Amino acid sequence: MLSERVRDLHGSPVRAMLSVSQQPDVISFAGGLPAADSFADLAYPPPPLDLMQYGPTEGEPALRAKIAEELAELGLDGGAERVLILSGSQQGVDLAAKLFVDRGTGVAVEQPAYLAALQVFRFFGAALQGFDRADPAAGWAGAARPSLAYVTPTFQNPSGHCWSAAERDGLAQACDAAGVALFEDDPYRDLAYEPCERRPVCARLKRASWIYQGSFSKTVAPGLRLGFLTASEDLFPHLVNLKQAADLHTNRLSQWFVLQYLNDPGRAQRLGRLVGRYRRRRDLFAAAMDRHLGGLADWGVPAGGLFFWATLRSGARAADLLARARRRKVLFTPGEHFLISPEAEPASLRLNFSHADEDAADRGLAVLGELLRNRPRRP
Amino acid sequence: MLSERVRDLHGSPVRAMLSVSQQPDVISFAGGLPAADSFADLAYPPPPLDLMQYGPTEGEPALRAKIAEELAELGLDGGAERVLILSGSQQGVDLAAKLFVDRGTGVAVEQPAYLAALQVFRFFGAALQGFDRADPAAGWAGAARPSLAYVTPTFQNPSGHCWSAAERDGLAQACDAAGVALFEDDPYRDLAYEPCERRPVCARLKRASWIYQGSFSKTVAPGLRLGFLTASEDLFPHLVNLKQAADLHTNRLSQWFVLQYLNDPGRAQRLGRLVGRYRRRRDLFAAAMDRHLGGLADWGVPAGGLFFWATLRSGARAADLLARARRRKVLFTPGEHFLISPEAEPASLRLNFSHADEDAADRGLAVLGELLRNRPRRP
Repeated sequence: MLSERVRDLHGSPVRAMLSVSQQPDVISFAGGLPAADSFADLAYPPPPLDLMQYGPTEGEPALRAKIAEELAELGLDGGAERVLILSGSQQGVDLAAKLFVDRGTGVAVEQPAYLAALQVFRFFGAALQGFDRADPAAGWAGAARPSLAYVTPTFQNPSGHCWSAAERDGLAQACDAAGVALFEDDPYRDLAYEPCERRPVCARLKRASWIYQGSFSKTVAPGLRLGFLTASEDLFPHLVNLKQAADLHTNRLSQWFVLQYLNDPGRAQRLGRLVGRYRRRRDLFAAAMDRHLGGLADWGVPAGGLFFWATLRSGARAADLLARARRRKVLFTPGEHFLISPEAEPASLRLNFSHADEDAADRGLAVLGELLRNRPRRP
Repeated sequence: MLSERVRDLHGSPVRAMLSVSQQPDVISFAGGLPAADSFADLAYPPPPLDLMQYGPTEGEPALRAKIAEELAELGLDGGAERVLILSGSQQGVDLAAKLFVDRGTGVAVEQPAYLAALQVFRFFGAALQGFDRADPAAGWAGAARPSLAYVTPTFQNPSGHCWSAAERDGLAQACDAAGVALFEDDPYRDLAYEPCERRPVCARLKRASWIYQGSFSKTVAPGLRLGFLTASEDLFPHLVNLKQAADLHTNRLSQWFVLQYLNDPGRAQRLGRLVGRYRRRRDLFAAAMDRHLGGLADWGVPAGGLFFWATLRSGARAADLLARARRRKVLFTPGEHFLISPEAEPASLRLNFSHADEDAADRGLAVLGELLRNRPRRP
């Protein structure tokens, strides 16, 4: 007999689409893939053979020290001793859920929120509750007080939103006042196309427990599956134990590879090129959105990250549009997958702009516009 | 507030010792580390850059196909479509526990059994129950029927035992008859120093659900954190979903590296050298055991794997011996950590013979012998 929790587990809809999107003639706005040509300058010599042995659960000391230096600049100064290397930041979600979530545990999330985090919290039995950025603690009284709040304040997936300083301060104060632990997921912070407030919410906390995690998937390479977390003193030792039980430690090749990248004197220049390329893609994508979806949908231009979040007009439903777009080999992700109540926003969708090149993006958006203009009437 | 399950989670005692064992003058029989010089012939060219992108959750197709070929030779013929690449086989334990274990779920385990598996099953709330190899189903009636049986039939960690064909058939029949799913962990199968029955128990099942997993940590390199599983058709899709929720997919560098190893024409020769070296270490270790622990303890010489399992005589307790041995910078793992009831076998201990070289092993065992002979009387 299988566990109770697995009966609620379904494969990710994005994963199912990703396998379709491998076909060469498909235009996919569905995933969150970096541009395929962005890895060309990542050639490093092979790793030393002493990395073949078992390593420490927490990660390689030199990598932890380097990450700790950079975290200190963000106001997170736990030092190298409080850095845990992860097998990608998806693993951080698994560890945080194991640490906090029993069946029925309240977890507060933005709406919309990263779908693979919702999936994991649900899997462990969380009672998900949305909250209002303008007044996070509004519903946090008595039995409705969540144990954990999960947020991606900087260039959120999927909305692209970047929280203002006031919003960040407000959430920190709410967590401190209510004793709600904060889990801040920050994989997009380096992909900033306009100046934005980016100082972590965790750095603004005075009392609450917290976990802050980052990723190298967006700035180095997702195939390495490398991320990291730091956490308040009370939580960190538990997270190390959970990491050990999950996979002993992160593979040392990826850790070595990312350390080379972090110490590479050309790093800032490389990141600058990447950000410049994505900014151009975003701008071209925004122009193509105007051309093809003007009057058919509403959206904001994101100041960073990898996604446009759009809402269809005139009662059009994203799931219906996707069903028709797939036949034309164009993919995107319906917004319902990012919501606690999928039925709440049937008109929203997420469009990734980093992966498809300019021509493909234009053709794909043209198809969506055409399908929306020639929409079959609902009976 | 932390989850219920995390309140039962403690760091591994072996992990705590491993950090001590990094000191250069310590002789450690505590871990399960491959010989440090066994990686010398593992130099491969750097991986192609297209592996930097996100990959499939299941793993690289070429690696899955190669592993499926070798599994078919063992009688496990699900094909490449039923191979899931893992971030080390510890991850397989996490996924299997997520798939089967709610609070109170019965899980049958050998006694002793791999401590990091016991830790994970306990963490998810399992009610662990021992079973008798000679009659596995003896206690499997009614409410006492477990959902899952976890076994390492080939050169078990820690006992070194290799199950006979009759024992394997008996367990398969018991699982089939009682409808108990079987989880077979097989990381040591290639480290065979004498001829032994090694055909998987899973290949003998007729009806029961099953998971079979293997590892490249013992034959290639543990720092890569690479393992794999195959499973019965009913379980496999769930395991893929769980893998995706845990870390999206295994890093592609390690997958590429292991594929090079598997396709290397010198592979059989390399494995032969490794097995030859470990066989010699085992024999020298056995001779040193005779010299230093003869009359003080009882043990068997393992036909494969990495460990001796010994039982102290005359009421000596392994935990007391370890406390004194640590001051002399000699480490091993007390048997209590491998047991459901730690107090059941206070005299047992596990000694790893693969990591320490001949001289160090001799000196370390001499210290243990001396401490046992000069044992303080209990008040």
